[in-house]
Amino acid sequence: MILGSDMFNVLPVDYSKKDKIQHRIDQKTKPQGSLGQLEKLALQLALIVNQADDNKEIDRIEISNPTMLVFAGDHGIARENISIAPSEVTQQMVHNFLNGGAAINCFCKINQMQLEVIDAGILNKINDERLIQQSLGFGTKNFVNDSAMTMEQVNKGLELGKKVIEKHIKQSVNCFAFGEMGIGNTSSASAIQSVLTQQSVEACVGRGTGIDDKTFGKKLTLITQAIEFHQSNLGSKLQEPMQLMAAMGGFEIVQMVGAMLAAAENRSLILVDGFIATSAALLATRIQPYSREYMVFCHQSEEQGHQNMLNELSAEPLLNLGLRLGEGTGAALAIPLIKAAASFYNDMASFEGAGVTAV
Amino acid sequence: MILGSDMFNVLPVDYSKKDKIQHRIDQKTKPQGSLGQLEKLALQLALIVNQADDNKEIDRIEISNPTMLVFAGDHGIARENISIAPSEVTQQMVHNFLNGGAAINCFCKINQMQLEVIDAGILNKINDERLIQQSLGFGTKNFVNDSAMTMEQVNKGLELGKKVIEKHIKQSVNCFAFGEMGIGNTSSASAIQSVLTQQSVEACVGRGTGIDDKTFGKKLTLITQAIEFHQSNLGSKLQEPMQLMAAMGGFEIVQMVGAMLAAAENRSLILVDGFIATSAALLATRIQPYSREYMVFCHQSEEQGHQNMLNELSAEPLLNLGLRLGEGTGAALAIPLIKAAASFYNDMASFEGAGVTAV
Repeated sequence: MILGSDMFNVLPVDYSKKDKIQHRIDQKTKPQGSLGQLEKLALQLALIVNQADDNKEIDRIEISNPTMLVFAGDHGIARENISIAPSEVTQQMVHNFLNGGAAINCFCKINQMQLEVIDAGILNKINDERLIQQSLGFGTKNFVNDSAMTMEQVNKGLELGKKVIEKHIKQSVNCFAFGEMGIGNTSSASAIQSVLTQQSVEACVGRGTGIDDKTFGKKLTLITQAIEFHQSNLGSKLQEPMQLMAAMGGFEIVQMVGAMLAAAENRSLILVDGFIATSAALLATRIQPYSREYMVFCHQSEEQGHQNMLNELSAEPLLNLGLRLGEGTGAALAIPLIKAAASFYNDMASFEGAGVTAV
Repeated sequence: MILGSDMFNVLPVDYSKKDKIQHRIDQKTKPQGSLGQLEKLALQLALIVNQADDNKEIDRIEISNPTMLVFAGDHGIARENISIAPSEVTQQMVHNFLNGGAAINCFCKINQMQLEVIDAGILNKINDERLIQQSLGFGTKNFVNDSAMTMEQVNKGLELGKKVIEKHIKQSVNCFAFGEMGIGNTSSASAIQSVLTQQSVEACVGRGTGIDDKTFGKKLTLITQAIEFHQSNLGSKLQEPMQLMAAMGGFEIVQMVGAMLAAAENRSLILVDGFIATSAALLATRIQPYSREYMVFCHQSEEQGHQNMLNELSAEPLLNLGLRLGEGTGAALAIPLIKAAASFYNDMASFEGAGVTAV
């Protein structure tokens, strides 16, 4: 069995064409830098999509079949009633995704993204051929006083995440967005953030989709307790991504980590959604640091702690709309900005070509 | 001749269906408020598009043929060399728009917006049937020590702006975006902002598309001087929108004001781009205050002063990408968010419909 980081080999982006790409951006008919973040984004996209082939020209960014992957999983900690909804809602929402009725369906549809929903480990199996069946189990164990999963499950999860990507790579997808569904998963993401960034639990725990003061206090206490429990078992080993995922991860988080690493390995674009997806991105960068170069952070969530995690990743999110829904909604909403960056890079005239006085 | 504010009659939005609309939003399968600004946007859109007909159901937001109007005009003050580019660039960029090579062309194309370019008064006439010819003159006069235009030109400009909208209303457009091109027009917009909001010139003047310290100092001095000149002539009358436009406006700004007021009058959505378009929006709200209810502010520009002007209009812009290009680019980039708000409002399942436990 190949373990964890050895399963992946993410190479850095090839920066040898950076100056040529930047020059192309600067010669477009606009004052330099006047398209703000879209110019930085175009540079990143051009570096990623043009690096694989040495002989390839740098004059186009092709975003091919952008695909949204929504990983669903349940969490043992949800039994503590620290979410606004019970675990059943995970399953109900997966049905809603499959039937096209959720926010993520609407946003993928208007932005021409294909959407795939993956059962990474929800409580009750759903027999539906539209659902990708790769469950790691019927929900994780309650990580307050137990390991969320075994190391075998972590390894299997990374592998299954990779499998999803490889299937789509064969269908010429080069842009993956990552979303999730799982009642209780903000608790897991907060614990992961606190351990990996050494930030206080208070700086990492938020109100999820909207819990009250009392529930919030309980959530804070339980996560503090959980971290103490695992630290007393594992010591500093808890900071190792594989150990950390086994201790306090989620099935959907582990599969997202595997999928993100596989996307980076295949030199594809990784569109990161909100708080949970960002915790998976943080884990991925701790396993393979170069994976960061393939990531675009799509929005800043209302969830407390997300800003801290984005800072840790030196990320400037594209959108800040006060979203706190998950499902990949922020990433789906950012797709038109990705296309806009590619479009000006590909099709805008240069000063010379348009006969405009260079400014 | 009908003058200024009497030319328009903008009615407030009908709020009688507000509770029904909000209830519809709250019953969608998501925690209440979890789509952040998109929920407020959906409410505004539903109020606007559903008000015209009392018998109409509230269950759909139809955005019909979104249209970008780019008004171009030249400015006498550009002779002072306080821009990064000479006035010729206005004409060159209009050619670029017509030939499809500018940023605004790219963004309209990917977001399926029709684009119309209007000569509101550039220095040199362009003979091209794709350009809407409604020039008010070959550039304004230098407003540092002269009136930018006559009151007749202001009235004519409002009328011509209205004419553009009425043509499109007949073609079922109900969503208009406003962009502009005009070397020197940040000076005009800054002066308008300073007079209308009583903010200091320093709080309103920025670096346009990127001038250096020396040019910036000169711009500041000239605008201060211009305001003093017109105040000494007009006194407090300078704060009247019509007088202010004649004194320090631009041909493209005046036509935008007329077009915005006509759009509001026709209960259409007004998508406001950056600094210059926002100065036109501010003028429009001072002529007909209810026009504000039809406006969506699309992005926050890098231009200093834009944030102050947005605050004055109680506007929360949708995007903040560090743009400082104009042309309507920020408004074109926001169109997918308008469509997203409409899409979740129209097509997302309710808790009851999807069998999801309400949260």
